[in-house]
Amino acid sequence: MKTVGYAAHSSDAHMVPYHFERRDLRANDVAIEILYSGVCHSDLHTVNGDWGPQAYPIVPGHEIVGVVQAIGSEVTKYQVGDKVAVGCMVDSCQECDQCHSHEEQFCRNGMTPTYGVPDRIDGTITQGGYSKHIVVREEFVLRMPDNMDLAKAAPILCAGITTYSPLRTWGVTKGTRVGVIGLGGLGHMAVKLAVAMGAEVTVISRTNKKEAEAKAMGAKGMLASSDAQAMQAAGSSLDLIIDTVPTQHNVNDYTPLLDVDGTLVIVGQVGPIDMPMTFPLIMGRRRVAGSLIGGIKETQELLDFCAEHNIYPDCEMITMDQINHAFERLAKGDMAHRIVIDMASLSL
Amino acid sequence: MKTVGYAAHSSDAHMVPYHFERRDLRANDVAIEILYSGVCHSDLHTVNGDWGPQAYPIVPGHEIVGVVQAIGSEVTKYQVGDKVAVGCMVDSCQECDQCHSHEEQFCRNGMTPTYGVPDRIDGTITQGGYSKHIVVREEFVLRMPDNMDLAKAAPILCAGITTYSPLRTWGVTKGTRVGVIGLGGLGHMAVKLAVAMGAEVTVISRTNKKEAEAKAMGAKGMLASSDAQAMQAAGSSLDLIIDTVPTQHNVNDYTPLLDVDGTLVIVGQVGPIDMPMTFPLIMGRRRVAGSLIGGIKETQELLDFCAEHNIYPDCEMITMDQINHAFERLAKGDMAHRIVIDMASLSL
Repeated sequence: MKTVGYAAHSSDAHMVPYHFERRDLRANDVAIEILYSGVCHSDLHTVNGDWGPQAYPIVPGHEIVGVVQAIGSEVTKYQVGDKVAVGCMVDSCQECDQCHSHEEQFCRNGMTPTYGVPDRIDGTITQGGYSKHIVVREEFVLRMPDNMDLAKAAPILCAGITTYSPLRTWGVTKGTRVGVIGLGGLGHMAVKLAVAMGAEVTVISRTNKKEAEAKAMGAKGMLASSDAQAMQAAGSSLDLIIDTVPTQHNVNDYTPLLDVDGTLVIVGQVGPIDMPMTFPLIMGRRRVAGSLIGGIKETQELLDFCAEHNIYPDCEMITMDQINHAFERLAKGDMAHRIVIDMASLSL
Repeated sequence: MKTVGYAAHSSDAHMVPYHFERRDLRANDVAIEILYSGVCHSDLHTVNGDWGPQAYPIVPGHEIVGVVQAIGSEVTKYQVGDKVAVGCMVDSCQECDQCHSHEEQFCRNGMTPTYGVPDRIDGTITQGGYSKHIVVREEFVLRMPDNMDLAKAAPILCAGITTYSPLRTWGVTKGTRVGVIGLGGLGHMAVKLAVAMGAEVTVISRTNKKEAEAKAMGAKGMLASSDAQAMQAAGSSLDLIIDTVPTQHNVNDYTPLLDVDGTLVIVGQVGPIDMPMTFPLIMGRRRVAGSLIGGIKETQELLDFCAEHNIYPDCEMITMDQINHAFERLAKGDMAHRIVIDMASLSL
């Protein structure tokens, strides 16, 4: 199938229109017309080559919302016209213990990210959601709940699941004391989701500047990390911290906020962190962990949860030709919580 | 009560005989004649002032085995002649949630270490086990099982509980895949305890030099951290790692050995550690934690467990006047797994 998207052809990350082919449908494939595609900071990191050499051209995008256009001969779950979504993964081995326990993100044989890696079957490089169409095996297609606002939902597929999964893994429920460091794309979703689970949420940021915004999302309060006295007073007051800081930082600034047996989960930074003393871990049996998106079953659960609780990311809609400007703003941190591309702005 | 011990009078850590008073018995106190006192590397760190300024003179020692010599008027648990032990704590508030849940080591009001800090009631500086006698409130006195070899048991009170507690906290049972980094004082106890719990234990050390020793303790095998190929092959093969390395080290050398949701527990190093990438945490939802000794109830459980399973630390017995030489050997790492002072070698 012929399609068109926007691709980077080199690490300068400049995005240009790109005509390419989507594969012919395999028996278990679903062809999707993409309506909305979220923009994730990791798209920019990837096309920039920040995380290593890439196979250019790259069509980024792993927050995909669309409608089923065609199905393979053995597809049973979806029909033409169904509203669907695709997230950060498009395949995995489906045979290992991790796949069997619905944790495809930890597939023993390596899950297949939505763009930039060889397809497991034909070896062609996967291409993402900044395009009019995508073809994905049905096991990695998600169903959009009927009442969901498709225009606002795309970032749930990455920013949403990245924060929902640790909240579930660490058993957040009514009354759990959750801290969220940072109120950006990931952080604001963490706040909304934790609040909907009944948690008492504290937003932690350098200053209290965003306090009104945090409270409007349901947070109980705000803690300014630059206020040493407030940080001291908040010691041992949290059960779980979702750390969305996307750059190198000192986790010991935050671990003393955890109560005994509490966990700080890193979801924002894939590079180095600083831990100048193990003392805060030892003195409270505290833990520092990482978490990676979530499995397909959990992502579907999240979509249903968001529809039920009317939770959406705060999105700014752009047209496809605004992507280079959006990347510039992303790099500068001058952006809405999340950007969504209206794919109607691009035509074959 | 007059007693005698060995004390350091300054940060040169030189130990000399020291005559001092133990307090008169309070109603809930137990006076103990000390038979054996373990030597912990932390004794050396403390008297050296490595962990900050100290209140000299210091009588170190928090691995104490002895016999009850007298009891206060309201003591109900112990009688004169009972074989008992004292570990790293001698008091806590007994009123907070942590004390109520048998986690006195995390007392909200601060537990009282066995030596070097003010007593909660009279403010005098607590003095430890390198002495003929000690007076401790009964809630912090442990009962030695009848069949226990007192001469070999002292290090269970620190090296034992420090490793037993995380093995229990993280649910080690039959078939759990446990890694133990280092085969020193803490490490060799971790191996023996985990083996007795039915775990499959792998000892991780720079080389395979101690493989025979590890296997004699029941370990399944040895992994040389200097062998990059072996480390790679062992990726994702462990559920829990007890990290006893007492110096700054890169935890990312070891975290990839953990399976999904596995935890590396730091028990050896209270200073900085290096974590140059969060990637190994994120890609397997792995965790790095700390752990601090254990509560009194858990320590009693451990003593009973050791007696039942005939588990003892590998000890070398010294006389009190050999302590300075023993400290020199400790500093050089030229020592048995654990040193015990025969307090019969010291007299009033």
